[in-house]
Amino acid sequence: MSRLKRIVESPDTPAGLVFDLVVQALVILSLVSFSIETLPGLSSTWQKRLDVAEAVVVALFTVEYVLRILVADRKRSFIFSFFGIVDFLAILPFYLSLGIDLRSIRVFRLLRVVRVFKLARYGGAVRRFHRAARIAKEELVLFASVALILLYLSAVGIYYFERSAQPDKFGSIFQSLWWAVATMTTVGYGDVYPVTVGGRLFTFLILMVGLGIVAVPTGLFASALSKARELESDEP
Amino acid sequence: MSRLKRIVESPDTPAGLVFDLVVQALVILSLVSFSIETLPGLSSTWQKRLDVAEAVVVALFTVEYVLRILVADRKRSFIFSFFGIVDFLAILPFYLSLGIDLRSIRVFRLLRVVRVFKLARYGGAVRRFHRAARIAKEELVLFASVALILLYLSAVGIYYFERSAQPDKFGSIFQSLWWAVATMTTVGYGDVYPVTVGGRLFTFLILMVGLGIVAVPTGLFASALSKARELESDEP
Amino acid sequence: MSRLKRIVESPDTPAGLVFDLVVQALVILSLVSFSIETLPGLSSTWQKRLDVAEAVVVALFTVEYVLRILVADRKRSFIFSFFGIVDFLAILPFYLSLGIDLRSIRVFRLLRVVRVFKLARYGGAVRRFHRAARIAKEELVLFASVALILLYLSAVGIYYFERSAQPDKFGSIFQSLWWAVATMTTVGYGDVYPVTVGGRLFTFLILMVGLGIVAVPTGLFASALSKARELESDEP
Amino acid sequence: MSRLKRIVESPDTPAGLVFDLVVQALVILSLVSFSIETLPGLSSTWQKRLDVAEAVVVALFTVEYVLRILVADRKRSFIFSFFGIVDFLAILPFYLSLGIDLRSIRVFRLLRVVRVFKLARYGGAVRRFHRAARIAKEELVLFASVALILLYLSAVGIYYFERSAQPDKFGSIFQSLWWAVATMTTVGYGDVYPVTVGGRLFTFLILMVGLGIVAVPTGLFASALSKARELESDEP
Repeated sequence: MSRLKRIVESPDTPAGLVFDLVVQALVILSLVSFSIETLPGLSSTWQKRLDVAEAVVVALFTVEYVLRILVADRKRSFIFSFFGIVDFLAILPFYLSLGIDLRSIRVFRLLRVVRVFKLARYGGAVRRFHRAARIAKEELVLFASVALILLYLSAVGIYYFERSAQPDKFGSIFQSLWWAVATMTTVGYGDVYPVTVGGRLFTFLILMVGLGIVAVPTGLFASALSKARELESDEP
Repeated sequence: MSRLKRIVESPDTPAGLVFDLVVQALVILSLVSFSIETLPGLSSTWQKRLDVAEAVVVALFTVEYVLRILVADRKRSFIFSFFGIVDFLAILPFYLSLGIDLRSIRVFRLLRVVRVFKLARYGGAVRRFHRAARIAKEELVLFASVALILLYLSAVGIYYFERSAQPDKFGSIFQSLWWAVATMTTVGYGDVYPVTVGGRLFTFLILMVGLGIVAVPTGLFASALSKARELESDEP
Repeated sequence: MSRLKRIVESPDTPAGLVFDLVVQALVILSLVSFSIETLPGLSSTWQKRLDVAEAVVVALFTVEYVLRILVADRKRSFIFSFFGIVDFLAILPFYLSLGIDLRSIRVFRLLRVVRVFKLARYGGAVRRFHRAARIAKEELVLFASVALILLYLSAVGIYYFERSAQPDKFGSIFQSLWWAVATMTTVGYGDVYPVTVGGRLFTFLILMVGLGIVAVPTGLFASALSKARELESDEP
Repeated sequence: MSRLKRIVESPDTPAGLVFDLVVQALVILSLVSFSIETLPGLSSTWQKRLDVAEAVVVALFTVEYVLRILVADRKRSFIFSFFGIVDFLAILPFYLSLGIDLRSIRVFRLLRVVRVFKLARYGGAVRRFHRAARIAKEELVLFASVALILLYLSAVGIYYFERSAQPDKFGSIFQSLWWAVATMTTVGYGDVYPVTVGGRLFTFLILMVGLGIVAVPTGLFASALSKARELESDEP
């Protein structure tokens, strides 16, 4: 039992590393097959192959889930932990689909994508992100609020300037908000853009202010993260 | 009276926190209803509901405004402070619209958006931004000037290269300035872009220089902000 | 004479400040009038007004240029300094246009834009930029080279993937270079984009690498600039 | 022999510097001629001129390659080093094309672009990049994983929201991934964009999270690079 525990829970041992790599490979295989299924005009031969692959993957994930419960010291707290729930949700859709009418499943199947979070178990990623988020938290909240207020103000402004020139594209503040999102993030799809002189001047001014507001948190988080790394290396 | 004062002015006490959260919820409710009103083809039933909601919100904001004046130690200086004026402007449009002809109000109603600034009262946001802006001020002014000069030069340059190939899109320096804004911020809507070899080469060169100029202030402000945080934590 | 010198050369004194502000206002006025001239369908009445404004501005700039030479301690070195040449070029086009045939002037008139550099005389901008550029020089050159190599490689790559699918847009490496510029800077006009699966995968990979390469110099220059500021404040 | 060695291997001496500059000029000449060859409708006269230029360049590169082997202390380790292989691949396509049927060469000729790496020999670029990559390695891997997971999740999300509204553009997860790449990098070509309310809200949320994730590594690498520079200057 304690040998099994070491394999399942410690990726430091050779056997544990193999176990983890196999699980990760299964996750990626399962996501690829999930993506292929969405291809339009898939032949029924391929559909069957993917169904078989899915069944095999779910079987193996079920084994993994049961193993993790078995070796856990505090079974209850594992089941209700983040990764315990992820592991459960990763296999749930399959078993539910066995009992339910086939029509309603399509959207439900999207839940399989939750498996991607199984990849996050490795590498101390979660812990370090958590710590960096805690250091820069106050500033991030502050900037998020300012960014939201600015987004709203720019939507109201462009609505005022463009609604008579382009009533189909800037017909309400909600439509203008879409322009604000596409512009302030500098994505700029080009489906909506101002055509009046006032609207263009307004776009210029709001971009000058907005680029900083949207981009600054990035720098804050980066410096918080390097601080988090320093704190970790100071620990014993 | 002093109990009322504590509720209105100190969000640290439980009652004060509730008061603030109610005001913030009202602001957001009022902005949402303001946005819904701009939807084209709104039924008159909904229009009436929104009018009622607006009246209720204004009534409550009026009560809040009167309370804040009552509890203020120096009433005059509150009325003419930034938030005093914001609170006043937040209710003014409604009362004015009761006495004035209905036609001219539409644009005037946009003033209601000033309520968004009531959200900024909380969290020390204003003070910290102010301090960070003061630290990085000289560099920000410097970069803003350089960015404006560069924008103008790139507009003149692209006007020279593209005016004969696309006279409808690069017909004057003002039109070229719109291209310069959309390009230097990397928004790139795609409504105007160079088609000549010279114009494309020029775009490449000006982007290489410009990306730095436009993006650098961001980094400066981020480092100024973390310096402002350090200064604050040094204070007693 | 020494009073005149103080007015022309020291913006610290009240009279010197007024002198500088007047010159800056003239520069901006002259650039605005230059931009208005490019508007198509300008009435001849306005054209005449702009011609008068231009003559007045050039007269004043000539006075300024002569003054600056008069008060300079080393006249020769002022005339051949950066700002000496800028001041000369700012008035040259006008005087040349008096003697030359009117047809060929249009392009030549663009030279008037050189006046924008007169604005750079103020605020220690030039010195600080120079210093920051010197600190980060080696890295900037390094990154510029890497960015150019990457741009070229991505143009060759996309040419390989897309030339048969879109021969009109990716017909040669030069055309592909335009795509590379618009993509790696994330401007993304949308006039050219990959449509093949291979081209899209290639775009993804090259963007992952390229975004860092193009964006990193920004951070380097920002930190170099704040170092330049520290060095300045250490000086007496 | 030892004089030849100094010319070929040390760009610090005048003769060595000339040697290096000549090689670099040849590389750039060869890349330009390679680009010109891809121009459609090239006259056969020019084609011939380019063929001659190519032959001359290859001859000189062959001489350079032989020289480098001759002067190398450990010939074997040079031949199998990164730059040894680059030098070999730079001339290989030409000699192979002499013996093989002309049809199949076109794609093969693209290999000539490997010459661009000969430019990387200079300036300590490789060593410094290597060192910076090692410092920030763990974070870069971490962020790359998170970015990939986020890209996949956003593709699945947008597929769910847009597939019924735009079945031709968001028909499968693979097509949605293309949208995710163009959006999360903020390139935003504008060939695919969400049109449903759900899809646009989702785009907003995923961009808020994603911009940070994609942009943060940049800041990390920049600070790692400046640390690498400090370490270098500490060395004797």
